[in-house]
Amino acid sequence: MYTVSELADRINNAIQTLPLNREPEGLYKPISYVLSLGGKRVRPILMLLTYNMYKERIDNEVIHVALAVETYHNFTLLHDDLMDCADERRGKKTVHKVWNDNVAILSGDAMLILAYQYLSQIDDPEYFSLIFPEFSKFALEICEGQQYDMEFEERTDVHADDYLRMIKLKTSVLLAGSMKIGGILADASKDDQELLYNVGLYTGLAFQLKDDLLDVYGDPELFGKKIGKDIISNKKTYLMIKAFEKANEKQKKELSHWISLKEFSPAEKIAAITAIYNDLSIKSVVEDKMNSFYNQALVNLEKVNIDSGRKKQLILFLNQLMDREV
Amino acid sequence: MYTVSELADRINNAIQTLPLNREPEGLYKPISYVLSLGGKRVRPILMLLTYNMYKERIDNEVIHVALAVETYHNFTLLHDDLMDCADERRGKKTVHKVWNDNVAILSGDAMLILAYQYLSQIDDPEYFSLIFPEFSKFALEICEGQQYDMEFEERTDVHADDYLRMIKLKTSVLLAGSMKIGGILADASKDDQELLYNVGLYTGLAFQLKDDLLDVYGDPELFGKKIGKDIISNKKTYLMIKAFEKANEKQKKELSHWISLKEFSPAEKIAAITAIYNDLSIKSVVEDKMNSFYNQALVNLEKVNIDSGRKKQLILFLNQLMDREV
Repeated sequence: MYTVSELADRINNAIQTLPLNREPEGLYKPISYVLSLGGKRVRPILMLLTYNMYKERIDNEVIHVALAVETYHNFTLLHDDLMDCADERRGKKTVHKVWNDNVAILSGDAMLILAYQYLSQIDDPEYFSLIFPEFSKFALEICEGQQYDMEFEERTDVHADDYLRMIKLKTSVLLAGSMKIGGILADASKDDQELLYNVGLYTGLAFQLKDDLLDVYGDPELFGKKIGKDIISNKKTYLMIKAFEKANEKQKKELSHWISLKEFSPAEKIAAITAIYNDLSIKSVVEDKMNSFYNQALVNLEKVNIDSGRKKQLILFLNQLMDREV
Repeated sequence: MYTVSELADRINNAIQTLPLNREPEGLYKPISYVLSLGGKRVRPILMLLTYNMYKERIDNEVIHVALAVETYHNFTLLHDDLMDCADERRGKKTVHKVWNDNVAILSGDAMLILAYQYLSQIDDPEYFSLIFPEFSKFALEICEGQQYDMEFEERTDVHADDYLRMIKLKTSVLLAGSMKIGGILADASKDDQELLYNVGLYTGLAFQLKDDLLDVYGDPELFGKKIGKDIISNKKTYLMIKAFEKANEKQKKELSHWISLKEFSPAEKIAAITAIYNDLSIKSVVEDKMNSFYNQALVNLEKVNIDSGRKKQLILFLNQLMDREV
């Protein structure tokens, strides 16, 4: 069986050999740029680990499906960064900053089409017609998730359930679909496919809550992004929603006060809101929820009808995702 | 056999029954909006007319592939209008004007995915694996064409060949691919498929030159858009490129002068440049080129191995495209 780092290498090598050095440069260079920014390659690794539970050998056509998932994911980052006016991604300038908005729109569109092309590297039409609907399903759901995310910015009545539905669409279905596709390609039974989907789904929910936690409680030395970005931008994370739920009148007023301020000292705002989170034990509330999701992921994985020895690499990787500081 | 207007009705009816009345409204409403703006439905009609040459009955799954093509086309219009900062399309406000830029980006992305979903309505995996690469091929080429088109705006050295390559990518390959897919679905021979592709390709080139001509010589009463828009925006149309090619020094200076002016009377600029076009007989130069392309389309269609009686509806439609005043 492959280790996670062997799979990551294979994915990164495959990305480097993609034929993106082509005309018009103005269309394809931004795509190479985005794909070469790195990242953890979580989704293709999940797909390949799943596949590898069932099948020893990983052919290049399977790698190409993993690339389809990674290319799709990076397309969403490209367009999301444009929509969010984000200047940086993984410590580098975003595409609309290096080039311009139109380049970001059009190169993103081309990436989405390329993702579908990589998907079709599966020669067997039967497999292709099985994975294609899965791919299109999560692709559309992710657009829906992004739409809800943008709408939530304007809303003040976002409840925990709304938030969980949003991150399910925006984040989890891609992990779920990646694992299910890995299973389909490896001839997993229908039951296993659904279990694998659920492993990805719950992992994704836990993964996003971890992300929300790291924004506030991450180690600034280790964490790639700046601490407190979500707080500064008034993002309605699970922490913030839970804080409003649990806060007394005085704390609610204080939270609302900080959110309403147009001008403020970022450090002060982060400190004040973090203090309220601490008073309300929000960290452990969110950790409990995260662990409960992660537990559901493991329960589903447990039920997958395959020797537990073959699940080790995947469990190792899932644990890494939960324990990450970055 | 179906008439063009019967096919247009079928397409429009199918568009109206698409399940787009769904959540989140902010994502799907702009898609309904764009698809309901109308238009001539040239691409799906070409696909269905081609199919209908071979097969009498047109099943709903074939209609869905036609819808995929139309949805894809409208997605490109949506994103192109955003990139070009166009305020109107078919006499109505563009999506980014009715909503905003982010809605235009995200709804466009979702449309592209929906187009792929409609494409997959073809149940038979064999057919699907044949039409899928065709679809992705032209989809990517159209992005390349749009990229060249945007780059040409900044360039002063665009030659006729560059321009023809650009419109081939941006416009023709979609007509070509639509006809080829129609042929594939109807079990046309490989030879016929290539001939049909060429019919669409040459028709597309002629179609775009017609568009360029209408911008200058269209009847303002009949033509939907304003006359002279390309002239005002310094668009490097085939007319403008040919004018620079044929102009004497004095005429070149005058053309360059008008192009360089930041402030001008639109009517004066249109009149002045049209006068130069007239002096250089640009209209007949472009008409000759257009007719030569159209002739190549008909020569290819002539060779398609099917009874000429079954080609009548298609020829009628192609003639309409060439004779159109809109």
